[in-house]
Amino acid sequence: MKGVGASPGITIGRALPVIKRPNKVAYKRLEDPKEVEREASRFHQAVQDTERSLIQARDELSQDEGDYSYIIEAHLLILKDKMIFDHTKELIRQQSVNAEWALSQAMSEAEETFRKIKNSYIRSRFADVEYVVDTLMRNLAGDQDNALADIKEKVILVAHDLSPAETTQMDLDWVLGFVTDMGGPTSHTAILAQAKGIPAVVGTEKITLEVESGDFLIVDGLEGLVVVNPDEETLHDYRDRQEAYQHYTQEVLAQAHLPADTLDGHSVAVGANMEMAEEVGSILSYGAESIGLYRTEFLYVTRRDFPGEEELLENFKTVVTRMEGRPVTIRTLDLGGDKFASHMEGSLTAENNPALGLRAIRFCLKEKDLFKAQLRAILRASALGRVRIMFPLISGVGELLEAKEVLEEVEAELEQKGQEYDKNLEVGIMVEVPSAVTVADMLAKHVDYFSIGTNDLIQYSLAIDRINEHVAHLYQPLHPAVLRMIQQVVESGHAVGIPVAMCGEMAGDQRVVPLLLGLGLDYLSVNALAVPRVKQVVRLTSKETWRQLAKEALSFPTAAQVREFINGKLAKHIPELFSELG
Amino acid sequence: MKGVGASPGITIGRALPVIKRPNKVAYKRLEDPKEVEREASRFHQAVQDTERSLIQARDELSQDEGDYSYIIEAHLLILKDKMIFDHTKELIRQQSVNAEWALSQAMSEAEETFRKIKNSYIRSRFADVEYVVDTLMRNLAGDQDNALADIKEKVILVAHDLSPAETTQMDLDWVLGFVTDMGGPTSHTAILAQAKGIPAVVGTEKITLEVESGDFLIVDGLEGLVVVNPDEETLHDYRDRQEAYQHYTQEVLAQAHLPADTLDGHSVAVGANMEMAEEVGSILSYGAESIGLYRTEFLYVTRRDFPGEEELLENFKTVVTRMEGRPVTIRTLDLGGDKFASHMEGSLTAENNPALGLRAIRFCLKEKDLFKAQLRAILRASALGRVRIMFPLISGVGELLEAKEVLEEVEAELEQKGQEYDKNLEVGIMVEVPSAVTVADMLAKHVDYFSIGTNDLIQYSLAIDRINEHVAHLYQPLHPAVLRMIQQVVESGHAVGIPVAMCGEMAGDQRVVPLLLGLGLDYLSVNALAVPRVKQVVRLTSKETWRQLAKEALSFPTAAQVREFINGKLAKHIPELFSELG
Repeated sequence: MKGVGASPGITIGRALPVIKRPNKVAYKRLEDPKEVEREASRFHQAVQDTERSLIQARDELSQDEGDYSYIIEAHLLILKDKMIFDHTKELIRQQSVNAEWALSQAMSEAEETFRKIKNSYIRSRFADVEYVVDTLMRNLAGDQDNALADIKEKVILVAHDLSPAETTQMDLDWVLGFVTDMGGPTSHTAILAQAKGIPAVVGTEKITLEVESGDFLIVDGLEGLVVVNPDEETLHDYRDRQEAYQHYTQEVLAQAHLPADTLDGHSVAVGANMEMAEEVGSILSYGAESIGLYRTEFLYVTRRDFPGEEELLENFKTVVTRMEGRPVTIRTLDLGGDKFASHMEGSLTAENNPALGLRAIRFCLKEKDLFKAQLRAILRASALGRVRIMFPLISGVGELLEAKEVLEEVEAELEQKGQEYDKNLEVGIMVEVPSAVTVADMLAKHVDYFSIGTNDLIQYSLAIDRINEHVAHLYQPLHPAVLRMIQQVVESGHAVGIPVAMCGEMAGDQRVVPLLLGLGLDYLSVNALAVPRVKQVVRLTSKETWRQLAKEALSFPTAAQVREFINGKLAKHIPELFSELG
Repeated sequence: MKGVGASPGITIGRALPVIKRPNKVAYKRLEDPKEVEREASRFHQAVQDTERSLIQARDELSQDEGDYSYIIEAHLLILKDKMIFDHTKELIRQQSVNAEWALSQAMSEAEETFRKIKNSYIRSRFADVEYVVDTLMRNLAGDQDNALADIKEKVILVAHDLSPAETTQMDLDWVLGFVTDMGGPTSHTAILAQAKGIPAVVGTEKITLEVESGDFLIVDGLEGLVVVNPDEETLHDYRDRQEAYQHYTQEVLAQAHLPADTLDGHSVAVGANMEMAEEVGSILSYGAESIGLYRTEFLYVTRRDFPGEEELLENFKTVVTRMEGRPVTIRTLDLGGDKFASHMEGSLTAENNPALGLRAIRFCLKEKDLFKAQLRAILRASALGRVRIMFPLISGVGELLEAKEVLEEVEAELEQKGQEYDKNLEVGIMVEVPSAVTVADMLAKHVDYFSIGTNDLIQYSLAIDRINEHVAHLYQPLHPAVLRMIQQVVESGHAVGIPVAMCGEMAGDQRVVPLLLGLGLDYLSVNALAVPRVKQVVRLTSKETWRQLAKEALSFPTAAQVREFINGKLAKHIPELFSELG
């Protein structure tokens, strides 16, 4: 099965499907009458399991203050209703189909009945039937409610999609790989998998329909392939490839600490993106010379209250101290969009287009106390090393000046209290909103550096939600407009002598790195695992090659043509990039 | 109360709140013990009303095939549960508060109880309690389920927000005005109100909390103000203003058919945007010389199946024939985003960021049969008049060529069948995705015209959802980046000799029109009601004034400064724009 390779590497193991309200149900025709009976009794078993959990739930409930057990009574009745229970068994036998299919058929027919009801209130109560059927479906899949938290053996997670809230529940040591229906190369699952070095294939569209619990899978994150229950030969072949890839990565890793100097002697700064303070050790071991993006959201999303200044300070201090004078770029809070603190969910997840909503700097400028606490902690940590501040999602000069004003207020407060901070601390912005590109010349006058955030910039510029599988194919980092925007930001920055970095996922794609450097970027910040490969690419090329590559690449009208062109050029100039990755 | 003026004019009348799951409930302290008792009995009455409707619902339900009446039984039990019923009455009396507040308190406490329940399935069934409480709240507000369809007196609709599905339910002849909590000047409610000439104020954030059924309101769509239960003096004052405004609009209307020629003799093309074929008459009466944007979604969203080629053809023929040779620009289907056909809802409204999802041309290129049926109908209608085709949401050259290829296939089919169409039909695109601006020079080579869609262009460029009230203040048509983008599109078009139009709401703002013309736009298409005013502004200015205005406006770094500058200039040069509108 084909998807998008979201995190490189090959993994082999058992599948654990994470079931969540499946939209579609697989159809299986059963040839053998024995199989039909087995299916009917499997359904019967699921009904009994569901009944048991409902009764248990009812009993638990009535011990609490306020007796709502009648809610469960209603659901028990639905469970045994002829339209669901009897009709599903009938369908399994009459049509010789699997239980899931029969159940979803029965539910569709029940839905039809409900649709005809005039009263909209009652019509909407079909949700009760859906809940019961969902529980039944979960029990049919042999899945538990809290499966993610309970994983205790090495598995390959197969899911429709995984949210940050879900992935924080699980112990990643047990996860051999990820395969999802949804998502693109910059979805949350992809970023997490890359950061942890776990192979992942996303955007398969229908893996959850094809894979059952316990199926044996090969996940090839390099090619974006998933093989379900492979034959011996395929398995053997992939074990070889797995070994070859491990060998290759070890070799690259062995050279990770060599400087990123080109063949003609130019140095390129390569840093790492970071999510948690605990990553500093591995970041340094992968040869990163700086942290180009410390995403601070993790400190906020995993708890019920917001962290205070002192707690944040402790965290920042740890990072800055362990980096021993190497630069640490801390991005101020980027909550909202697809990243929410659990206690924010009530108010903000109700947004219809959260990516275009109250997020990042907008949220911070509205919640000034929260913003100031973070700024104070960052400033105080700056006394201990080399810290840079980075504001996300700046859309124009007005917003930037507003954020800088808050920063100045905080500085004045610290002065007054006699608390130390780096008075030369560099302040920069993420360039990730199209309008910021358009007025980059105006913005450049007010900052010490730019850092292009390609994930959001591409999303907004092409009007494509990068985690929406219906349009994922239109998310094109090599779109001519994206390349021109990068060029424009670089030119605007260099015109006033400030450096321009890139910290989006695009910078970690080794086949795109020469083009990016050719567009004039000074600094690439990528996920830690990609650092050695990015440095290697720099060492294999020259500044002149990049320039020529970028100049020609900018002449093509479509992303496909650009991709074809740079792949052709690179295959000729740096065959290593292709041969070793197979 | 302050909001955003979304449709000009002044209206005075009784409020009809449209209640939908209110997020917040107003708090009222009752001083008089009699009032407290009245409140308790009002609550009692609402409980009885709710009970009656539930019982009626249950009886209706059990007549249908499949007996789900036990669902309703559960809800009847919730209604009489001590935590809701008894506790609300207790709270009204103990705290001397209004019933709504007491009920929402009781519900919060019940929610707390549910929160403590470990089993997530049962915890989620708090939704049942919410449903019952919602129904109670509606009955307390004296509102009916289908209030919108049943309006039979002249009212001012007060709502949290209104969806296209809701507004199509109502008979707009009864609507004197709209006031909503949510939305900005380009929200659905605003566009509808402008098209129908109904005064509207949107984005008040909290009007639904302040206004009760039957309150007397003044809605000032010019200044974005709502006055609740005004005193005699205010009322008198507004009646005068209402009359003055009607006088002013009549005067402008009287000149609607004069050509839009500047003081120095340049002609500007002014057309109208249209949603339904029925509008052609009023469009012509307002002096529009063409239809610059025929939004065809209305033919799709108001029904359960999709219209076929013949049905579409009939509709297009009517429009083209009635326009008697004047140009008609038909935009191909722009479903998705915030516009859905009811039968699409299952699959697509599940998108997390529909504005960045499978919509418009992307949807059409996926559903080619649907797309081709529409293209065939447009082409066949082109035999009868002057038709232009316009593709929405084009993001780059690849997508445009793909759409043109489908168009060519359809043309070949028509040739083969011997069906007539205009072989010189002009094909253009909406420029509304930031990437299209960046590669406008590449796109210009493949089209006959550009039309800038400012609503979406601003939304994507600033990463601001225009209907999200949390960020509506950041939706800035005069953002320097937006002005530069317009300029870039104009220059790219003119470089190859194609005209550049604008069909977003921005073009209908008479105080912005001179700036737009100064940026070089050739053609403005606005809502019909704005046509006379836009033409009037053209007649009051000269091309040289525009040029100077645009040149200077482009030098400011923030939207606020641009606004201040152009208002200052216009107040000096065209005082008519300010004095007559108060």
